[in-house]
Amino acid sequence: MASTLPVGIGDDAAIFVPKAGHETILTCDWFLEGTHFLRNKHPADAVGWKCLARAVSDVAAMGGVPRCFLLSLALPETHLGRWLNDFLCGLRRASRRFHCALAGGDTTQRRDILINITVIGEVPAGKAVLRRGVQPDDILYVSGKLGEAERGLRQLQSRRGLADGKDRALRKHLYPEPRLTLGIWLREKRLATAMMDLSDGLSSDLPRLCLASGVGARIDASRLPGVQISSDSQTRGISPLQLALHGGDDYELLFAVPQRKARLIPSSLQGVPLTAIGEITRSRKIVLAEPSGREVPLKPGGWDPFRQSQAKR
Amino acid sequence: MASTLPVGIGDDAAIFVPKAGHETILTCDWFLEGTHFLRNKHPADAVGWKCLARAVSDVAAMGGVPRCFLLSLALPETHLGRWLNDFLCGLRRASRRFHCALAGGDTTQRRDILINITVIGEVPAGKAVLRRGVQPDDILYVSGKLGEAERGLRQLQSRRGLADGKDRALRKHLYPEPRLTLGIWLREKRLATAMMDLSDGLSSDLPRLCLASGVGARIDASRLPGVQISSDSQTRGISPLQLALHGGDDYELLFAVPQRKARLIPSSLQGVPLTAIGEITRSRKIVLAEPSGREVPLKPGGWDPFRQSQAKR
Repeated sequence: MASTLPVGIGDDAAIFVPKAGHETILTCDWFLEGTHFLRNKHPADAVGWKCLARAVSDVAAMGGVPRCFLLSLALPETHLGRWLNDFLCGLRRASRRFHCALAGGDTTQRRDILINITVIGEVPAGKAVLRRGVQPDDILYVSGKLGEAERGLRQLQSRRGLADGKDRALRKHLYPEPRLTLGIWLREKRLATAMMDLSDGLSSDLPRLCLASGVGARIDASRLPGVQISSDSQTRGISPLQLALHGGDDYELLFAVPQRKARLIPSSLQGVPLTAIGEITRSRKIVLAEPSGREVPLKPGGWDPFRQSQAKR
Repeated sequence: MASTLPVGIGDDAAIFVPKAGHETILTCDWFLEGTHFLRNKHPADAVGWKCLARAVSDVAAMGGVPRCFLLSLALPETHLGRWLNDFLCGLRRASRRFHCALAGGDTTQRRDILINITVIGEVPAGKAVLRRGVQPDDILYVSGKLGEAERGLRQLQSRRGLADGKDRALRKHLYPEPRLTLGIWLREKRLATAMMDLSDGLSSDLPRLCLASGVGARIDASRLPGVQISSDSQTRGISPLQLALHGGDDYELLFAVPQRKARLIPSSLQGVPLTAIGEITRSRKIVLAEPSGREVPLKPGGWDPFRQSQAKR
């Protein structure tokens, strides 16, 4: 990365050399103790991975390639030792995996652990896949399974003490994988008319995609790629459908494809399932077609920091 | 800014079109309640101005031109009304003044007011003025007066209630002016071998400039452009020299000029005084030449978040 980052940490600012013919993608994300993670539940290594992964996901959602990031970190003095080491270890692995180099940042002391990440990405000029651009009858797709991260969060909340970072059931919640390969593939093949990542849950994010183009959508409940859950959870009123509709933090991609191109979408890409879940409608309503065939309005039930005051994830 | 920011707020990320032949400057800064400002002392309008001004100052310190910024804001629900309006008003004025457009950001709810700003700037390729690059015998200059912001902070701390944003004595503390014109002028004229902005105080920042080139410096106490202070303050042991050496938040530029070019530095640029305060030395020590002629080591006494646990500014 030496040539794209001639000046990194240690000067007043970093210097990034943009690639000719490309535009720069800019995104920033909070990752705050108590709001987005819990000190006594989330391993520092997972905090390091996830804070970068979720910001990189915004670059994936435009079909872009991440290049570098800035880290703003506020920590208690008690966390300068082992916690910081583990955090940097997870962050470094994410940085290598996503080919996204640390360019600079700002550190300060604070009672709470506060993280803010800015990711700088690139995309060939004029080729970014935006939220706007869908047409009525476009087919809506999602990658992966929906609700997997939320299921992991609930398991983590129900247990005592620090989560085991190696627990497979928690992996999607602790170590999300931004869908970079899929985003780039869709952009290069010009298959998606619009795209976004699912961070707050399908029921909250889909209306945003639709609003950008002044359209609506009909989602088919029976086609949603949900997760299996224990009979225990089912008894407590949690269903795979509820998790798939409202669960946050999946960082899967939601994208629209014109009908005539839908045959070009494979059932999976590099092991990640791609599922048609409904279509764009001229009417601005967002409706859910239940298995019975009945259509009901789909209301946002995902993550909203100004509606939910308790720590949710 | 329409052409440089084709996608702003409302998508997964912002898109910035870099200027051909230019490099991108990236910098981010915390601005946190209790650490960098106080809710019951600092007017929201000043918080809005200052959070952007101090990040833009890092771009000025490289001779760059600010282009756009990302705002990450966490607020209590009680502050969504008037406080937020006033904050955005100050931020908007700063944004216009510095020609630095809001490109995007992230908002969430939080008990404390937390702000993080990322500024994106530009500089012709290879022309940024870095911290490294000084040579022994280069003359050290500073812009403006040193200690003015710290004097303002102390006045604000000694009074009750919210500060009056129109109080001239507090202006430098509440509404700092990044030295963009000076930074660009020095870069275009190729006069500065190295440059940085003074955010933590001369005694803390000068060693960083020297370290980057493996040199030292000798500062002449009698030449430091200090501020006047009341006899009251003098009695309490505060001197203009102490403020000039250790006072933070001035956002003036510290830069080095080769001796043969020193005659090209005017005594002021657009009303901002430029003062030679000492020179770079081969020895790696940082020394202060007292008015008596005696030379003493200059120890860092400015802002350090990991040394000072109380809210300082």
